[in-house]
Amino acid sequence: MCFSEWPGLLSDQAVRQMNKTGKVYLVGAGPGDPALLTIEALRLLQTADVVFHDDLVSPEILALIPSETHVESVGKRCGHASILQQQIHSLMINAAKEGWSVVRLKSGDPLIFGRAGEELDALREAGIECEIVPGISAAFGAAARAGIPLTDRRLASKVLFLSNHQCAGKHLLDRQGAVSEDTTALIYMPGADYQELAAKLCADGLRPETPCLIVSHATTREQRVHATTLANLAEAPHYPAPVLLIVGSVAAKYIGQASSVAGSKDSTPSPAFTFDFALVENRLEPWEESAETIQSAK
Amino acid sequence: MCFSEWPGLLSDQAVRQMNKTGKVYLVGAGPGDPALLTIEALRLLQTADVVFHDDLVSPEILALIPSETHVESVGKRCGHASILQQQIHSLMINAAKEGWSVVRLKSGDPLIFGRAGEELDALREAGIECEIVPGISAAFGAAARAGIPLTDRRLASKVLFLSNHQCAGKHLLDRQGAVSEDTTALIYMPGADYQELAAKLCADGLRPETPCLIVSHATTREQRVHATTLANLAEAPHYPAPVLLIVGSVAAKYIGQASSVAGSKDSTPSPAFTFDFALVENRLEPWEESAETIQSAK
Repeated sequence: MCFSEWPGLLSDQAVRQMNKTGKVYLVGAGPGDPALLTIEALRLLQTADVVFHDDLVSPEILALIPSETHVESVGKRCGHASILQQQIHSLMINAAKEGWSVVRLKSGDPLIFGRAGEELDALREAGIECEIVPGISAAFGAAARAGIPLTDRRLASKVLFLSNHQCAGKHLLDRQGAVSEDTTALIYMPGADYQELAAKLCADGLRPETPCLIVSHATTREQRVHATTLANLAEAPHYPAPVLLIVGSVAAKYIGQASSVAGSKDSTPSPAFTFDFALVENRLEPWEESAETIQSAK
Repeated sequence: MCFSEWPGLLSDQAVRQMNKTGKVYLVGAGPGDPALLTIEALRLLQTADVVFHDDLVSPEILALIPSETHVESVGKRCGHASILQQQIHSLMINAAKEGWSVVRLKSGDPLIFGRAGEELDALREAGIECEIVPGISAAFGAAARAGIPLTDRRLASKVLFLSNHQCAGKHLLDRQGAVSEDTTALIYMPGADYQELAAKLCADGLRPETPCLIVSHATTREQRVHATTLANLAEAPHYPAPVLLIVGSVAAKYIGQASSVAGSKDSTPSPAFTFDFALVENRLEPWEESAETIQSAK
């Protein structure tokens, strides 16, 4: 006789713990458009017991998670330490120890400019099995929608991902020599001081006329793009976060939706793709029908 | 009376040209595992009229394309100019002018280390509508499967994508100062001369003991990982292309499948994910059944 023949003798939790081992999936949500989720990410979102997500994950992606799933925001924004990193570790570890399938959902790719290193260390120390599912990083989404190559053998042979995030009290552009004429620089979290940022990039050897794109909410309905140069960056508009800067010769390839309008290269393009399907009970259903299904299941 | 009321009077091609405008989609196939395709990429692969793909796109991904689709390899490998870039442009432009929906499928992300810049220019000059669908670049796939963060505020604040591709007669690492202690360098197409590559990186200021991962066929069943340091890179095995090097402190976080075996950090891990579904007539079907469906339809 085995326990499973007498499920009434055991609590739900005990049965769960016997039946499956908890596991944490560090999953990339991509830049925002649900159609840019990977197949694997979508499958995990629709089968997980628990989802812990960052603030920047788009509402359209969170809407794909079944209503019975426990979904919790563990976002920390610069200057608002609403939750400590240690608390996030504890939440994941405890949920996995309960036998749950846990998705830790991060915007973009989970391994870049997040706290994946610390989260992986904590999970490993606690003996929790962990798997990483990559995602489309915001810069790739932004470049795709702006229609510019990130490398081009005629213009740029390198791509540098960096962050100007100042929460930790240090500037990541402090070291000289990191960027050069043939580098496309992708600056995440560029901060509010565009003048200082442009000055640093020019001090690093970039020409003031180096083209620059400011992309806000890449790939979402709220996407906004502003084309400028380092010389004029200080006068550029400050769009809502998340904002990404693409700096380099390739940015000159940008053709805005409104580029035919004289003097304006700003655009608020409608998304190029619409997400038509949702994974419902292992089937990809047309989105509107499945939305009703999810709604009626509530 | 409009033409469409008299389809019999028109050739199939004329009806096609009237009914839809041809368009080219530059699509990222991701690193190899079909589960790492985006939803949008999968949808386009299963609805396109024509797919022109690179050599490096995995057979598992090509197997997802319906049998009635025209699929053509337009791969060019270093030293084997089997097809000229101009010919690829002509193929895409002509197919789009026929009114076809054309997918130009590139491994990884289409905007990095391909010829996307030139292809976009050619398509724009020809007045062909074009849309770009980003993909998971090989480095993100490799890092995810190796379980290492690409940035870690304790170790690396920048990520540099570069290529040591020597076909064009120049080394892309020639300029000094590009890499530093706090940079994770992702070297695509590292070439055969690991000794020279290590010497260049050390000349650029990296310590000889800087950890280094060699990843071949990232995220596929053929994935192989070798952990070493710059000092020992010259003695490292030469795995089959595509090969990617991850150089930097974060690489020390790698825990190989065989890491418990003394002295060995090589691994040939089985893929962490399996692709269970295929999109068949707008439904996501279990993979084996849909494979039979596709087979029986032939």
